Amino acid sequence: PHPQMQMEQMGQFRITVWEEENFQGKRCEFMQECRNIMERGFRKIRSIKVENGAFVGFEYPEYQGQQFILEKGDYPRYEAWSGNSGYRTEHLLSFRPIKCANHSDSKVTLYECNDLQGRKFEICDDYPSLQAMGWCSKEVPSIKVNSGAWVAYQFPGYRGYQYILERDRREGEYRNYNEYSTQAHTHQIQSIRRIQQ
Amino acid sequence: PHPQMQMEQMGQFRITVWEEENFQGKRCEFMQECRNIMERGFRKIRSIKVENGAFVGFEYPEYQGQQFILEKGDYPRYEAWSGNSGYRTEHLLSFRPIKCANHSDSKVTLYECNDLQGRKFEICDDYPSLQAMGWCSKEVPSIKVNSGAWVAYQFPGYRGYQYILERDRREGEYRNYNEYSTQAHTHQIQSIRRIQQ
Repeated sequence: PHPQMQMEQMGQFRITVWEEENFQGKRCEFMQECRNIMERGFRKIRSIKVENGAFVGFEYPEYQGQQFILEKGDYPRYEAWSGNSGYRTEHLLSFRPIKCANHSDSKVTLYECNDLQGRKFEICDDYPSLQAMGWCSKEVPSIKVNSGAWVAYQFPGYRGYQYILERDRREGEYRNYNEYSTQAHTHQIQSIRRIQQ
Repeated sequence: PHPQMQMEQMGQFRITVWEEENFQGKRCEFMQECRNIMERGFRKIRSIKVENGAFVGFEYPEYQGQQFILEKGDYPRYEAWSGNSGYRTEHLLSFRPIKCANHSDSKVTLYECNDLQGRKFEICDDYPSLQAMGWCSKEVPSIKVNSGAWVAYQFPGYRGYQYILERDRREGEYRNYNEYSTQAHTHQIQSIRRIQQ
């Protein structure tokens, strides 16, 4: 591609990570994914600034383990991205851009049963409480992402375990809770929202 | 008022609190505010179910200290409502309903300076990253709630300290960060959203 175009494309995603809290110590800037920060000599990532685009961070190398949504802004320490203080290994060792996020064109279908079966509910907006919207259970057995990228949460109000659900992965089909994450600890999903680029 | 009307009004808000985690131990149901759960013989609240309406929980009696938004759903332990694991006193001792929440008619104005001065920005939707929207700072010095009720957060993605901002309190005017909360620890506001009833 033309060098100028390439630069513009790359500039859509920019993240800086530090080895210590509060943007101290060893530092590294990325415009694309990082499959293992330890290959750069980091023990772990303790603070982050997202300058452009949205990213998903992972607990372990190779995009494994717990997931953390990272939108534009400052994350001075683990608590700023985790939202789940019960589980305190404090690792963040790999991350990648979320390329299909589109805040103004996002649609997702929630299903009452596994394998995209049973009664369904289509949503295009953010829901801090699925139960307040009329969903009768604390669980969502399967999900189809029709467009954009979403983050689903264990608890109401966008808290607890986070699951990043993207149109461009698995063709947007999440057929049971094991597909939400390589380490989904629970079926529970009580809030869901669009990801902002 | 007519008894039937009164019952319907009261039924808009319903919350059950337990003294132990996972909905165990001493239990109490409320359809209105509670200024001090210790008056009911609780040491503290360790789990919550919100059956109807939205509530705000407070760290201390008399609606003082850190604030926690509580929308319809299940909160089996402190981490489910706190979202701020750095600060682990784990108290929740008073709460009250949020009567002016209106998810479909909510408007707020953010100001660049204290006392509702300087350049302003009107918003009607949820913003997981104010910086991605174009707000250039990590701070919001003052806020006017024009309609509905909102929750502002310290970090992007609805994490960190929470500040409940209501049209019906202070005439919706929050003129500096001390007015966001009786214990605002920081000026930082990096995400904001409407409260769902």
